[in-house]
Amino acid sequence: MSSPDEPVPEAVPEPVPDRHDHATGEVTMLPPERQSQIIEEIKAVAETRGDDSEVFDLIDIPPTGPIPIAAAVETKEDDDALALDDLRDAWPLLDLEERGDGLRVLPREDAEEFFIALTPRDQADLLLYFRPGQRRQWMRLLEPDDVADVIQQAGEANRQTLLALLDDPTRKEVLALLAYAEDEAGGLMSTRYARLRPDMSADEAVLYLRRQARAKLETIYTAYVLDGAQRLLGVVSFRDLFAADPKAKVSDIMTTDVVRVTDEMDQEAVSRVFAANDLNVVPVIDADGKMKGIVTVDDIVDVVQEAATEDAQKFGGLEALDMPYLQSTRREMIKKRARWLAILLIGEMFTATALGFFEDSLIPILSLFLPLIISSGGNSGSQASTLVIRAMALGEVRTADWGLVFRREILIGVVLGVILGSIASLRVFIWGEAGAYHHLSAGSHFAIVGITVACAVVGCVMWGTLMGAMLPFVLRRLGADPASASAPLVATLVDVSGIVIYFTIAKLILSGVLL
Amino acid sequence: MSSPDEPVPEAVPEPVPDRHDHATGEVTMLPPERQSQIIEEIKAVAETRGDDSEVFDLIDIPPTGPIPIAAAVETKEDDDALALDDLRDAWPLLDLEERGDGLRVLPREDAEEFFIALTPRDQADLLLYFRPGQRRQWMRLLEPDDVADVIQQAGEANRQTLLALLDDPTRKEVLALLAYAEDEAGGLMSTRYARLRPDMSADEAVLYLRRQARAKLETIYTAYVLDGAQRLLGVVSFRDLFAADPKAKVSDIMTTDVVRVTDEMDQEAVSRVFAANDLNVVPVIDADGKMKGIVTVDDIVDVVQEAATEDAQKFGGLEALDMPYLQSTRREMIKKRARWLAILLIGEMFTATALGFFEDSLIPILSLFLPLIISSGGNSGSQASTLVIRAMALGEVRTADWGLVFRREILIGVVLGVILGSIASLRVFIWGEAGAYHHLSAGSHFAIVGITVACAVVGCVMWGTLMGAMLPFVLRRLGADPASASAPLVATLVDVSGIVIYFTIAKLILSGVLL
Repeated sequence: MSSPDEPVPEAVPEPVPDRHDHATGEVTMLPPERQSQIIEEIKAVAETRGDDSEVFDLIDIPPTGPIPIAAAVETKEDDDALALDDLRDAWPLLDLEERGDGLRVLPREDAEEFFIALTPRDQADLLLYFRPGQRRQWMRLLEPDDVADVIQQAGEANRQTLLALLDDPTRKEVLALLAYAEDEAGGLMSTRYARLRPDMSADEAVLYLRRQARAKLETIYTAYVLDGAQRLLGVVSFRDLFAADPKAKVSDIMTTDVVRVTDEMDQEAVSRVFAANDLNVVPVIDADGKMKGIVTVDDIVDVVQEAATEDAQKFGGLEALDMPYLQSTRREMIKKRARWLAILLIGEMFTATALGFFEDSLIPILSLFLPLIISSGGNSGSQASTLVIRAMALGEVRTADWGLVFRREILIGVVLGVILGSIASLRVFIWGEAGAYHHLSAGSHFAIVGITVACAVVGCVMWGTLMGAMLPFVLRRLGADPASASAPLVATLVDVSGIVIYFTIAKLILSGVLL
Repeated sequence: MSSPDEPVPEAVPEPVPDRHDHATGEVTMLPPERQSQIIEEIKAVAETRGDDSEVFDLIDIPPTGPIPIAAAVETKEDDDALALDDLRDAWPLLDLEERGDGLRVLPREDAEEFFIALTPRDQADLLLYFRPGQRRQWMRLLEPDDVADVIQQAGEANRQTLLALLDDPTRKEVLALLAYAEDEAGGLMSTRYARLRPDMSADEAVLYLRRQARAKLETIYTAYVLDGAQRLLGVVSFRDLFAADPKAKVSDIMTTDVVRVTDEMDQEAVSRVFAANDLNVVPVIDADGKMKGIVTVDDIVDVVQEAATEDAQKFGGLEALDMPYLQSTRREMIKKRARWLAILLIGEMFTATALGFFEDSLIPILSLFLPLIISSGGNSGSQASTLVIRAMALGEVRTADWGLVFRREILIGVVLGVILGSIASLRVFIWGEAGAYHHLSAGSHFAIVGITVACAVVGCVMWGTLMGAMLPFVLRRLGADPASASAPLVATLVDVSGIVIYFTIAKLILSGVLL
């Protein structure tokens, strides 16, 4: 790990602009007819997907009137060329070879821009797909933190191949980043931030940052003031330096009360620090108080999206997919789904066991309402668990709040149960009055069956609500992800207990009448 | 709506730093004993919630060694004072009065910082709670886009009261922002962006921005180049201006190929534009091509969080809550939950109807497996709908992809069905062999019942998977939110059809044997 005492703009590798002809020289290597064939194929795929009006209406934006300067750009786009948007539209449906071809036929600059904006997984796949001679140029487009993500995605087997593409200082930086777990703040951070000395003047600082403006720093707009041992003394915005008296010392302009995160902090926790403090960038500190890097808010958007996706998938009752839906293979998909379904099925088998205990109560007029009763419990349970899981994810509800949530939900559960129970029994009375159950044995006792159903719904809804609300706390307590309190899991648990509730109430009320 | 031809730093109201004594003069107005009582109460609440180690470990960060400059700040914090973190910890559990008191006892600067970082809803509540004489100072802390959010949250009745607190130019800006729907790009944007002319030199531009550095612009680091009619010609980063030849014209430095959004674009679509292009800030253009403002990535984090919360709540089978869990009243909570539960219950009543059709098949040995079979369909359906809803939200799957998803899921559904069906029938065979069903009428036919159960599980899982995967497409087609294809809704639909599938298969296989 490098911990230079001086800011090291020298160590920052230059981007590749001076080697344009090498960079994507492949464009000229494709015969023209092959090129137009590729373009046509990709355009056709893009066409079938169309614009999802709800998703993307960038295309509808009218040109901003007479733009003399932009005109040159616009004429450049002839109809035969592949537009960035076409490739972006078609991308999820293309295989690796088609993707590589698509990048080849794009203008160099567009291709690079497109490549940089891809997910680390796609970047990793493409890098490994490219011929060894070409990998280096693509790899050089990426910042060290992005390279680290790519290498993580590419897996252990390809680690050395990819690391070999880097120059020495970058490889050092990347190795330092790879030491962090994927979900730690350290895995998100960029090591290329602007550093200042406390005893510089504002003017010197501005000049120094101006010199760094061409370097590949993540941002020059927020600079960190470090002492000789790389410890963070304060932060200063470029704007403040700029607005200050040129002779003022950096140490007098800087803010010393800096919100910071540790390098081993969980990324979701980092995202909550961003939200709670309305930050754009946060410094990352290690256990010794040394500054290691910065995390910027644009990376936090990805963290938030990924966390939401993971939670949604867990809540839906499957393992987190970790890749886009259309890009996962059927095999992976089945594996990630079958495991949970099988576990749930085994759980659900206890319904048969439970029903076995009440076999003499399994008379048709009671069986008729069984799915209705147990599912009302499952539904209210899945509502409650959604609310608690999401509030936990946002940091609104903490583990210590379980008592509060318990009291709240028990009351809500009773009210909801009474509402649903009334509706359900009404249905039984009306249908019963209309003679719907007369041909069933004991069908004439529909009134008392209606009361049984009402009581069972109240019991199941209350129980389901409580189970749904408490399960996330239990899971977190056990060290598991609260989001695993999925709708199907809650429904399964409530199904089994719902059967017990229903038939126990039925035995109490109907014993001697029907049973 | 103001569309000034010139950049209008003059129109930007100054912040209130020169009126410190007025700003939160209340601190001195509270008697000391009342003040320490408040502090103690809030600290006690904060204590009970503790630190959610998983959520927040900021506190564990070691001090960054000997910091001469920061020392002054640290000694300031005596034990009697209320720390920002305490108030933040206690906040969700405090009522309005306690919150107001909490802000009063904080040091002025901390209180302002805390207030600015609150949600618009909390800000609105507090503003209306403050005495009229104090509202203005708090309101002035907020940027126009934040004021617009506050006014939207405060509701129609308080609109005029709050608007009256603003000075004329700010009110004009806020009114322009309020014209946008809450979920449109226009509702997110800031009108305070840096504007440049194309014919300025780089040096002039830097100087001009330097002068604006003290103004309340959202950012001076990205400047937009506009023509006389406010149309966007290009964008230039401060960094580029800074690194360029001082005599170069802005029009030669700027990028003309600017990703932009329209003011009426949906906010979630804007967030996808940010993600697809790795942006930090995006210009907002109206239908005439005029630049209206900018949206910055930190606002996008909130959009993404809110969208994820809304989708999660819809998927959990309730209406979007639109406020933190602990802060919603029980009444609202019950309303938002009861409606969907009642609808689902009514849907679930069709299970009774369906069972009615098969009443002569409702023999105990078949009823035993009913919950197991229908819930395996519901579980696989909720998996499929989660995957599709989330992929739609991320823009990975578009409406036009339904055919693709259909083919994919039908295959996956069959494989999953076969896996689960085998497990389920195995259970029936083993229990049957062990004599578990012998005392039931027809219990000796367990082998053929096992086959029936297996076939029913295959059918239900396949059907559930398809329903779950297709329902989001259907809902989107109907103009509804795909996220409404909730786990409970899918489960309910699959319950009804699962009964039909099960007993139809049973009739086919068992007719003449048991039925």
